[in-house]
Amino acid sequence: MIQLDKAQIQDLFDFETAVDAVRAAYVAFAQGRVQTPPVTYLGFPEVAGDCHVKSGHIAGDGAFVIKIATGFYNNPAQGLPSSNGMNLVLSAETGAPLALLQDEGWLTDIRTGIGGALATHALAVAGFERFLIVGTGLQARHQAQCLQQLVPDRRLAFSIWGRDAQKAKAVAQDLTAAGLLAQNTEDLPTACKAAQAIVATTPAQRHLIARDWIGPGTHITAIGADCPDKQELEAELTAHADLLVCDSPEQALDHGEFQTLHKSGRLTEADVVTLGDILSRDHQGRLNSSQITIADLTGLAAQDIAISQATLKKLSAFE
Amino acid sequence: MIQLDKAQIQDLFDFETAVDAVRAAYVAFAQGRVQTPPVTYLGFPEVAGDCHVKSGHIAGDGAFVIKIATGFYNNPAQGLPSSNGMNLVLSAETGAPLALLQDEGWLTDIRTGIGGALATHALAVAGFERFLIVGTGLQARHQAQCLQQLVPDRRLAFSIWGRDAQKAKAVAQDLTAAGLLAQNTEDLPTACKAAQAIVATTPAQRHLIARDWIGPGTHITAIGADCPDKQELEAELTAHADLLVCDSPEQALDHGEFQTLHKSGRLTEADVVTLGDILSRDHQGRLNSSQITIADLTGLAAQDIAISQATLKKLSAFE
Repeated sequence: MIQLDKAQIQDLFDFETAVDAVRAAYVAFAQGRVQTPPVTYLGFPEVAGDCHVKSGHIAGDGAFVIKIATGFYNNPAQGLPSSNGMNLVLSAETGAPLALLQDEGWLTDIRTGIGGALATHALAVAGFERFLIVGTGLQARHQAQCLQQLVPDRRLAFSIWGRDAQKAKAVAQDLTAAGLLAQNTEDLPTACKAAQAIVATTPAQRHLIARDWIGPGTHITAIGADCPDKQELEAELTAHADLLVCDSPEQALDHGEFQTLHKSGRLTEADVVTLGDILSRDHQGRLNSSQITIADLTGLAAQDIAISQATLKKLSAFE
Repeated sequence: MIQLDKAQIQDLFDFETAVDAVRAAYVAFAQGRVQTPPVTYLGFPEVAGDCHVKSGHIAGDGAFVIKIATGFYNNPAQGLPSSNGMNLVLSAETGAPLALLQDEGWLTDIRTGIGGALATHALAVAGFERFLIVGTGLQARHQAQCLQQLVPDRRLAFSIWGRDAQKAKAVAQDLTAAGLLAQNTEDLPTACKAAQAIVATTPAQRHLIARDWIGPGTHITAIGADCPDKQELEAELTAHADLLVCDSPEQALDHGEFQTLHKSGRLTEADVVTLGDILSRDHQGRLNSSQITIADLTGLAAQDIAISQATLKKLSAFE
């Protein structure tokens, strides 16, 4: 069994390969070619901890993947990161373990960054440049970096807003240090109106982005809502958008951004398009430069499979 | 993260420690102290393969366990074992991975052997000696060896019957070579009548053991039925037994030996006793030497937790 630690995984990582793999995984999922058992959940409420096990297999692949991800939110007080995780790759032909990727959650962060970037790129107006990030966590950084890497010929202008202005400033500084064009903003309504595309990546439980702030032609990728009771966008904004896209309709309607409208009976699976169908061009996506589009991403095991396989692709021993 | 391969695990293994841990795990499960998410299943029908992920946490334990078990039934044609697997131990305090036990399924075999032995020992008549094994697979061997180890002061007499007489002979030879008193038999009805305790460990889909063959005082541990449509005992035998015990009522009634009676409405959860309640003496178990008792074991993640922790207990680095 090949074993790689986080540094080795980062060293082997190739962005283009990963993007191609994640894109293909979304398409495979939309086409019903991914076997995805229900997510396993273990809770450790006494220490504010949880563990999720996601697993899946893309039809025809020689390997399948089991991802173990933990979040223990008291860890930082002990000087430890709250997130940890690994991806285990097994042969779909013999069941033998092939590789253990001890990425400590890094691959999940990256596949989430790539997923958001792919959705934004596919749905925002052609040639978009003004990009607003709502949120100041790790994904604020990953979304920006993945999106800029996806459009290397165009210099994007990033604005960052957070409920904590200092944290927004820190994100802007980090992105600037990484060579991106970034500045923080303290005026969310104005920033929303100015943006051509927005990513919302907060754990908000009440909406942060109001319908009135979003002008024609704007695209929003919402990745913060990943469990019941989380919501980043005003329900009326979602209700009146021209195109609603998600990675998994089942998840988005149950515990993603679209849950509120679904629970009130205003939204069904028939109203949403699967991202894989946009990426494969089975669905035409945005029709013109005045539509408001929203993508709600809750994360797929297919992404974990893709990013794991992409990592291993560069290892000749694995091929 | 500590990593141990199969040989290292076997070297560290201590039977008494494992028995104590598995017994405590059954008790904890019966008392509702084990968090056990649903089992994850992935199927690979083209190569007759499957993967099960079991996970769980015993309240108060410092660690939790995720077990990955694969069965790829075309492997032997390629000279590979059909089963494989590993147990991953993570901190229940920080989520950090603590140990990877690459036991290749050996710990599952042993915990299953110990589970059956504990059930038989707890429910068979006091001082039983004549033990019949119905089945010729790996568990035929493990059940015998674990049971004999559990009663070191008594020399058990093992009979082995299988649908393939040559295989039964091979089991008897293996057990004899291991120092046990064992012989094969080709007459199942007579062997059943002579036995004080029986273990049924076959993948039979029609019952092998008839009601008329089982005399007063006999105990039967059934471990073969582990999915819908498997059954080793005649339904009327189960229906008329004096005491029905199982590791998990939910599993036993859904896909274990008790499923047939449950599906026909003749058996409910109220009719079965949980093994942990027998082992803790919360339930009195067998009342006299003429009762017929049956234990149906389908396997618990709690056993995987127990056997993993017992393995690590001998490692000073882990304590």
